[in-house]
Order: sequence, then structure tokens, then C-alpha cells
Amino acid sequence: MKSYDIVIIGASAAGTTAATTAKKFYGNKSILIIREAQNVPIPCGIPYIFGTVGDPMKNLIPVDNIMKANEIDVLVDKVVEIDKVNKIVLTANEKVSYDRLVITTGSMPIVPRLKGNNLENVYVVKKDVAYLLNLLSFTKEPKDIVIIGGGFIGVEMAEELKKHNENHNVTVIEMQDHVLNLVYDTDLCIFAEDSLKNIGINILTNERVVELVGEKKVSGVKLESGKELKADVVIFGIGFVPNIELAQNANLEIGSMGGIKVNRYMQTSNEDIFACGDCVEKFSFFDKKPTGLRLASIATMEARIAGANLFKNFRLNHGVVGCFSTAIQGKCFASAGLTTKDAKKMGYNIVVGNAESVNRHPGLMPGGDQLKVRLIFEASEGRIIGGQVYGALSGGELINAISAFISQKINAEQIALFQAGTHPALTASPIAYQLVNAAENAIVQLRSCKGSM
Amino acid sequence: MKSYDIVIIGASAAGTTAATTAKKFYGNKSILIIREAQNVPIPCGIPYIFGTVGDPMKNLIPVDNIMKANEIDVLVDKVVEIDKVNKIVLTANEKVSYDRLVITTGSMPIVPRLKGNNLENVYVVKKDVAYLLNLLSFTKEPKDIVIIGGGFIGVEMAEELKKHNENHNVTVIEMQDHVLNLVYDTDLCIFAEDSLKNIGINILTNERVVELVGEKKVSGVKLESGKELKADVVIFGIGFVPNIELAQNANLEIGSMGGIKVNRYMQTSNEDIFACGDCVEKFSFFDKKPTGLRLASIATMEARIAGANLFKNFRLNHGVVGCFSTAIQGKCFASAGLTTKDAKKMGYNIVVGNAESVNRHPGLMPGGDQLKVRLIFEASEGRIIGGQVYGALSGGELINAISAFISQKINAEQIALFQAGTHPALTASPIAYQLVNAAENAIVQLRSCKGSM
Repeated sequence: MKSYDIVIIGASAAGTTAATTAKKFYGNKSILIIREAQNVPIPCGIPYIFGTVGDPMKNLIPVDNIMKANEIDVLVDKVVEIDKVNKIVLTANEKVSYDRLVITTGSMPIVPRLKGNNLENVYVVKKDVAYLLNLLSFTKEPKDIVIIGGGFIGVEMAEELKKHNENHNVTVIEMQDHVLNLVYDTDLCIFAEDSLKNIGINILTNERVVELVGEKKVSGVKLESGKELKADVVIFGIGFVPNIELAQNANLEIGSMGGIKVNRYMQTSNEDIFACGDCVEKFSFFDKKPTGLRLASIATMEARIAGANLFKNFRLNHGVVGCFSTAIQGKCFASAGLTTKDAKKMGYNIVVGNAESVNRHPGLMPGGDQLKVRLIFEASEGRIIGGQVYGALSGGELINAISAFISQKINAEQIALFQAGTHPALTASPIAYQLVNAAENAIVQLRSCKGSM
Repeated sequence: MKSYDIVIIGASAAGTTAATTAKKFYGNKSILIIREAQNVPIPCGIPYIFGTVGDPMKNLIPVDNIMKANEIDVLVDKVVEIDKVNKIVLTANEKVSYDRLVITTGSMPIVPRLKGNNLENVYVVKKDVAYLLNLLSFTKEPKDIVIIGGGFIGVEMAEELKKHNENHNVTVIEMQDHVLNLVYDTDLCIFAEDSLKNIGINILTNERVVELVGEKKVSGVKLESGKELKADVVIFGIGFVPNIELAQNANLEIGSMGGIKVNRYMQTSNEDIFACGDCVEKFSFFDKKPTGLRLASIATMEARIAGANLFKNFRLNHGVVGCFSTAIQGKCFASAGLTTKDAKKMGYNIVVGNAESVNRHPGLMPGGDQLKVRLIFEASEGRIIGGQVYGALSGGELINAISAFISQKINAEQIALFQAGTHPALTASPIAYQLVNAAENAIVQLRSCKGSM
């Protein structure tokens, strides 16, 4: 039987980061990372395989290289059981004893209970190279493609499949009022929809799928409204559920939202077993309640906590801020913290400041593109609780300044006096700098709320 | 005699922002902004007139539009005197009484006392459209151009003049070891030098000019080393001094570094007169001592303080963090807070964390470019005091997340758990996100400093 101080199950964003963090904090401990698949796709990169990148093999986390550089052993095998009493992990072919275990089994795409969901050519977006290669080759020639779910994955898949073959007839079906409705304010959702419609993608909102039709192969999709769409391919993009089978079989506690329950040190109900990433239950930075948000950037944050705490508690989880972005037709859509919808739902009295400008100065400098910033403040103390960025691709990093502000709970006044680096070739001018001006815009409202002056 | 509640002298970054801020805070007060020039160039955009933008008239702050939108009156005239006893501003043609005055007279390029400095074709980088047009037309045909001073202005002018006409023979003379030596760590300075040399710009460091030679027109530059360079044009880019003539004549107090002295509310020694921007004395965010750093982004920050405080103290100056960037040959060079050189000079015991990755994931996504982040922490509490970014242009906004961290005085542990928004088309992967990994890199060193574990 092999024996390691630290064993990590899973080698995607969480597993990889937990391993390298553990190495940084416990350099003299032996570490093994176990992964099932020969190749580990970059999760957020999967939609881009279809158009921009063109090949799943070009979208891999270089796990072996990272582990080799960190002197961490790798085992490619399927874990079948965790024996927590004897502190042993059983794989299909081996037994490995551990002193500390980290579970990063990730999540699985949801397949809804729907008639016809087992027909041929019905896909999910799976972190599996062979499966993705199959979908890629099947969508080479023009097809009627129906994507069910207008979240990030659905929208990104739609755009990339259209790039893969512009003669595809691509339809996105979303049961909410708008695509991306859970992650952006309504105006940004509408911008996204318009961009997708512009390249010929059909968007059906407020629509539910009731059945997939076809014999053996899928041939159509029936909607609640009575409409029926022709479909050669159906792709489900309606979310992910934590992959907790191993944890459940080991009798580890499971949270109310279906993830492995962990404390703020990322420790499961067994003190020698930690867990992080998509497989664990998460809580909000804001109201500390459970949240279903799953992102690779949250997974790596949790992995930095789990990896550091294996033998001594160094790091504490402060909960999910939630910072994410996408690019649609060359425009950035990014959000950090709460949307106005979420903030109101949580009971905050809010003030919203907006500002917009070209991201260069003068605006005709190369790369100049309009960039809009929205900041959301709770009205009582003026602290920032959310922000959104739309437009120029440089917004993909600007959102991170907003995420920094949110995590520090600073107020609109502090942002108004923020010293931004500005340059003609890189950003808006200091007069027009969107982040600062959005705060100033909110301050006018905050002051009138309070009736000061 | 005209009469206004608020009069602002100067309409560049500071004046414009002071005016709009005053309007936000004191909407019912009458406001006048006085500017001398018909057209106000965007200060940081001036070098780009020569290559990328091509015309000073395309690099203007739209002062009149901004003021019209804010219902602020504009007077184009030269202020000749401030009568602080009677609270009157005298211009060449008018008298205007004020209740509160804001001085934003900016700075003037330094012309060193040097033999030959008054020869024809010896230029400075002046915020003056006619002057710039003259230099632009004079540098249309191939010339021997000598730029004295390898700071931002000198380096940007060199690159842009080469873009203006690739047959120019451009030389930058810098008395320090490297160009940009005061603003970046040495490795970044060397990257900058290499980029400039690659496009045929000559860089002479550790060199001092002792004389400009020529009869009537400049024809050469003599160096301390004995070298003599041929020169059809000489451009001084060795810095700026505060323009304090009006303030001095009004007997306002002047600081030890030559700027108008202001308190932390941006109030001068006369309580009804405020000042902000390049013309005022500044102090460091870090050691609270006077600093000579002048940036448009500092000017606007100060203007937001001055404009808000005119009738009631709302805002306090916390000093200059210093966040700035440039782009050389398509690469971003950015810095926030202290460089390692500055930090050591201030007596900090420091730890430096570095991380580097492509700013896309996978790296072959369009726009992918290497991006390097350096974070500088003081060793005792691990708080961040500086950061630098080199490479991909998206670094122009990434530096602002670093500036946010510095202004909040947060530590390496907090940055290591920062929740960054990451996306294949916009940033590095969450596993490789440079900001977080640079902090992790520093933490390894910080922990070994403290001998923990």
C-alpha cells in the first residue's frame, strides 16, 4: 500500500491549487494527487473549444507539468472509496493511505428529467475530452442546434458553435425573462441578447422545454408554449450539481444545497478530510447564507484555504463574493458581488451609480471602446456591495478592482478618491475614469438620501 | 464686475474636475471656470499627437462641453492677479469677485540652465496647441532628434516621433542608470530600453548634457563624457515645476518643494482659496513626507477633495499613492505605490512576490500575451506597499486592483484569498492568476522570514 501525508482527489482548478498550496505550506510532506481522466480540460475554456480554440486538446490544465515542478506525485486512476476509519483511499487499482485528504470531486452537469433526454445527440457540457471531441465533430456540418439554458455556458456555447459553422441554426431557450438573468442586471442581459441576435442566434426567453422528440436520435424540442423546434443536436446548459458520491458513501455531512458541508477552514465533518471547489457547500460573503454560485475562481480561493490548513489553521473562508465575466462578440460582461436584483432580494436599500466613457484618451487611440461601469452601494453606510462592467475587454481586469473594493467593504467616498493609474493607450482619462465617476454619481444620490446639505 | 460664488482658475484635469465636483456638492452656487488657452490639450495625450493621434486638435479636453452639461460658466482670459483681500480675480479684461477660489495653475516644463538652451528648435513638452503643431510640422521630415530626459515624457516622445517618421534618428539621454529609473524596478526599465532599441531608438544612460551647440539654430548636443551628438531638434523632457506665480504674488504660502502649500482639505493659507493639481505641494501616502510626483490622476483626486470642501469639509487627502502606467511597443508598464528602490530608501524591510502567466486561458485565446505582476510587501505585517505590472495591455486595469489593495493597506494573506473574476477571453486562469500567485509567492518568503512552521 502506498502511503502519503496528503492525498488530493481531483485535479481540476480546486485540486491543482490545493496541491500547490499544500506544497507551499508543508514543503516536507509527501503529496499525491489522483485524477481519473488522462486529460483535464480547463473548465471555463470548454465552450471556446468549438470556435476560437478548435480542439479540446488545446484546452487542458497542464496538471503533470505543474505537479512535476512542485514535486507532487500524480496517480491516474478512479477513486472508488474513502475509508475514513483506516484513512485509506481505494482506487480501481490501488490502496493509498493518507494523513490528510482533500476532496475536489467537482460538479456534474444537470440532465433534467424530461422525456427524450436519453435520445442520441442530446449532450451536456461535460469536462471530458473524448465526449467534447465527439460533439465537436458532430457539429462540423450545418445543424439545427437547440441549447437549453441561457446562462454563461449556454450563451458561450451558442456563440462559439456559430463560429464553428456559421450555417448552424442555433437557438437558446431560457425560462427566465432574459439570458444571463441571474448574473447581470437587465440592461446588460439585453445587450447580450442583442449581440447574439445580431449574429443570427435565436433567443427564446420565458420558454420551458417539455419534451425532446425523436426516435433513437433527437429530432425536435417541444416547448410549453406549444412551439416545436427542429433539432439535430440538443445541449443542456442548465447548471451543475456537486459531485458528492464518494463523500456521501463515506458518510461525510452534506449541506442543505447538496454540497459537502465544510467549516470555515474547509474541513469536512471528518477533521482529517478537507474539501473545496464545486463539490462543497458555499455561503455568501454578504448574508452568510448558502449560495449555489460555482466558479473556478471560487474553487481556487477555497483550495488556497484548504491547502494551507491541512495541519494547522492559517486561513479562514469569508464566503463567496462572486466575481465573473464573459465576452460576447468582443464585448466584456462582468459582475462582482451582488446585482441590483440580488441586493434588493437580500433586503438592502441600495443606491446605484453609473459612469461610461471610452477606455482610451483621447477616444480615438487604438483599441478605444466604450466601457460602462455600475457600482451598487447599500444606502445606510454607503458601502459597496456590487458592481458590473460592460463594453471594452479591458473591463475584464477593471472588474477586479471592484471585487477588491467589495472584499474590503469600502464606501463610495473612498472609491471617489481612489487613485487610478490612467494612460492614453490603456484606460479612460482621469477626468472620465468610470470607476471613480460611478462612485461620484452614487454619492450625489447617497447625500440626497440622507438629506445632508 | 462679475460675481460668482465659486471661481476656478485653470481648466486642465484639476480645474475641470474641481468644477464638476463643486457642482455636485453645491448645485445652487454659481460657478465660473477661467482658462487662458482656447484649447486645452489632454496632458498625458501630448506625446501621442506625434505618432498615433497625429494632430493636437484631436487631443483636447472637451472643457466647454463638460461645463455646458454642468451649467458652469466659462471665461477664456488670462488671470493676472488674485486680490485676496477684496476676494477678486483680475483677468486681462475683467474683474470677477468670488466667495471661494480654486487655483489649478498646473505646472511648467523645466528648461535647465544650459548654454544654448535658447537656440532655435529647442523644445519642451508644453500644454500649448500652437507650440505642439509647430514641433509636429518641424518633425515631419527625417531629423536628428535628441530628447533630454528618459522619464515618461521622454520615452513616449521618442517612440511616437519614431512612429511620426521612421527615418528620424532619435536619441534619448538619461543621467540615471536607466530610463524610467524613478518609476519602475530595474528589470522593467531594461525591458523598456530593449523595446525602444528594437525600433532603432538610441539610448544613452549615465550621460549628462553640458551644452547645446549651434548658431541661431541648434545643431548639436555636447555630453559630459565628451561625446557630441548631431541635433536638428532638441526636446527637454526632464520634468515640471509647479506654476505658482499667481499664488506667490498673492502671498499664499509655498511648500518646501515649491508647490502651493495646502492642508489636507486642499485649502491654502487663505481659507477661502483652495488649490489642487500640479501647482500644489504633495505628500506621500506612505511616509507623509513631501513628494514631487505629479500625475493627472493625482490632480483629479485632489480636485475631488477641493471641489467638495469649498463650503464644508467633506473630504480629506490621504496623500499620494502614485499609480501610473505607460505602453511601449504594445506592452504595458505600470506601477502603483512604492518601487522596491523607493521602499528600501524609505527604510522598509520588504518582501517581493512575483508571478507571470499569459492573460488568457488557454494561452492561445486571441489577445493572449504574457503578463507579469510584482507585489511589494513590508515584512513586519505583510501589508502591500507597491506593485508593478509588465506585459499585456490588460495590465493597465490590473494595476488598479493593486492600487485598491495598497490604499486599503491589506496584507498578502488577504490578496492570496482575493476572488478575481477570470475568463478565457479576458484574463489568466484562476489557477495562474498573477495577482493572487504573486501574493502566494511573497507569503512563502514572509513565513520563512518569521520562522513560522
